[in-house]
Order: sequence, then structure tokens, then C-alpha cells
Amino acid sequence: MQIAVLLYDRFTALDAVGPYEVLGRIPDAEVVFTAARPGPVRTDLGSLVVTAEAAFSEVTRPDVLLVPGGPGTAEALADPETLDWIRRVDATTTWTTSVCSGSLLLAGAGLLAGRRATSHWICLEQLPAFGAVPTPERVVIDGKYATAAGVSAGIDLALHLTGRIAGDDVARAVQLVVEYDPQPPYDAGSVATAPAELVASLRASGLAIGTP
Amino acid sequence: MQIAVLLYDRFTALDAVGPYEVLGRIPDAEVVFTAARPGPVRTDLGSLVVTAEAAFSEVTRPDVLLVPGGPGTAEALADPETLDWIRRVDATTTWTTSVCSGSLLLAGAGLLAGRRATSHWICLEQLPAFGAVPTPERVVIDGKYATAAGVSAGIDLALHLTGRIAGDDVARAVQLVVEYDPQPPYDAGSVATAPAELVASLRASGLAIGTP
Repeated sequence: MQIAVLLYDRFTALDAVGPYEVLGRIPDAEVVFTAARPGPVRTDLGSLVVTAEAAFSEVTRPDVLLVPGGPGTAEALADPETLDWIRRVDATTTWTTSVCSGSLLLAGAGLLAGRRATSHWICLEQLPAFGAVPTPERVVIDGKYATAAGVSAGIDLALHLTGRIAGDDVARAVQLVVEYDPQPPYDAGSVATAPAELVASLRASGLAIGTP
Repeated sequence: MQIAVLLYDRFTALDAVGPYEVLGRIPDAEVVFTAARPGPVRTDLGSLVVTAEAAFSEVTRPDVLLVPGGPGTAEALADPETLDWIRRVDATTTWTTSVCSGSLLLAGAGLLAGRRATSHWICLEQLPAFGAVPTPERVVIDGKYATAAGVSAGIDLALHLTGRIAGDDVARAVQLVVEYDPQPPYDAGSVATAPAELVASLRASGLAIGTP
């Protein structure tokens, strides 16, 4: 089973690496980090560089597509080569997935029309412009399209997918191997639980994530 | 504030990237990925390559040291250059931290003697050989030494550290930006909650993590 992870400048590292750490542990999984051109790709915070080992032209029929988000989403949305590749591989995937503002790329490629989808909370309201139905849940599965909320939600998405792909027992084993027993010291991880003034102030800042 | 993340062959990607995604968002944080020699470093699952942009010789006084774990821990433990660098930079850090079997490297460098520390559950019992006191909690802080349990626990560790370094308000803001509102679909993330036969079977396999 081949899992292709799309990379582009200024993607958010954890969007890709969280799911990689889970999905990459499914027996027989082969993960390939893919970009328009192979080589180093710099993540949004600036100090982490990961390598795209395969070009779009080398990855033509992945079983699973994972599209991360990040501030670079806006630029990627304006790149026909990226949207074309997403559309092309989607034609034969079993699962087409995204984390964070990555769902805007799936939507921009025309794949989410009429479908329920989620995204980072700051860009949920951008989904209707592409015909998608914004759904403020952490993981949304509509047909073969599975979208996750912001950044860390990719880990939860990947556990859901692992269960669907390889069964609950494998998913539980992977959860234990990566010791995913979260105990955040604060309760500010969603707009529902964070202080209202914090939400408002981050909204006002725009976070520079994926403005199309 | 400089945060140095140690890289070595076959480290576990999420051990480093989880904390990076949180700590890297502290205002004025500069994260530097560091290895004995700069260049590409391949993570344990094989298909993700990240770049060490600085050599040990270039990173001499980080404020925070973060040491990830992974199957490569065993080899790193046998490398005097790595242990020497850890010891040298620890002399002036404000925080010396680890995720997963990374605590074996701190312990192997002699930094955890008599201190409470945690690690991936599969290698907790290896800590006493280095004089550390194994403490099966998700995040353990003893003085300036902060250790996290396996893989995904680095995210919780990083939120604790962000609170201590930059205050609770900044930590809450980072939590909301990375939308860390975990909702795992299974309850198998710790040895306390996972099915006993799963724990036994993974223990028997050894997971190949950091056997010194």
C-alpha cells in the first residue's frame, strides 16, 4: 500500500509527520514524500527542512493521498501543477485525505463539492467557496474523503484510517507504540474550550493560514 | 532563545516534530536541528528524511536541548561524540529535555543520576542501569530535566515547557493554533488502558527501541 504525502513550501510539519508516524506503521505501508520537484522543502516555522524524495511524475497511483496544510496552502492553491496532480492521483486512490488547511487544496482541486469536510478552525469558513460543506468536527469522513481539523488532528485522523485500512487491532497496536495517551496541561485546544478573547485575538491575526 | 534538537540516524520523527511544532511557536524561539555532521538524517520508518542544518560544533550554548528517541538510540548511546555534546551543552541549558528513549541518551550522558525520569514504556526499566529513577508518567520534570513518555508525549511535554518558559497564556495560544484537542478513536495509548495481550505481545517483540 503506497501512501503519498504532498509537500510544498511552508507546509506545517506536524500536519504531515503526525499521520506519517501512524500510517507508516501499518504493515506493508510504503510512505513517499512527494513534491512537484524532488529535494528539500522548508516548513512554515522556517527551521525544519524535510526531503521530497519523489517528484509528482514518479507518484501516479498511490493508494492513499495525504495533503497537509500550513501558511503555504495559499500559494499551492494558486499552482495548477499541484491541483492537477491531486486530481490525477485522486482518480485511483482508496483514501484521499487532508490535515488542517490541506482540505482547501482538496476543495480547490474540485474534489469536495457537496461533501462534508473540516479544516483548521481559522479557515473552515473558506470551504463553502469551493462547494464543500464545512463541518466543525475533528475528523470528518465522507466517502473516501477524510479531512482533519488543525495540525495535531492529523494523528486522530490517521488512527481512524488505520482502523479502516488494517483493522482495530492494528490501530490499537500503533496507538500503543506511539504512546498516544494525550494529557494536555491546558484545555485550550479548540474554539469551544479556549478563552473567547484568545479565539478572537487569533482570528483577528488571521494566522496567515491558507487564505485563498 | 535557542532550542537545539538533536538528530541521529533512525530517530523517531514525531518525537522531534511534535515538540518543534509547539516550542517553535514561542515568540523569539529559534530552533536548530543539530547532528554530529550537517546533512540529511533518515528517520526510523525509513521514508522521511530531515536535514540537520548545524553541526555539533556550531551549537554550543542552546537554552533548551531536546533529545528525541527511536530505534537509533542504541547506536547513539555507543557514540562518545554524541554523549559528549549532550553533556557539554547541558552545562549551560535552562532546560534539558527528551522524548521517548531519548531519556536513555540523557541518562547515558550521566545527567539523570538520582533524578526521576520517564521514557517510552518499553524502555522505562532500562533507566536504573544509568542511575535514574524510572517514573511511569507522561511528563516528568525534575529540576531542569524534563522527560516525556513515548513519541506523541513530546507534544504534552512541549506545552508544559511553553507554559514554564513563556507563561500559560502563550501556551494556551499555541495549543489553539495547533488545535491540540485530542480525540483518539481508541483507548489503547498506554499500558494501563491497552489490552493486556497487546502489551505483552509488543513487549515480547522488544520494539527495537533503544536497547543499550
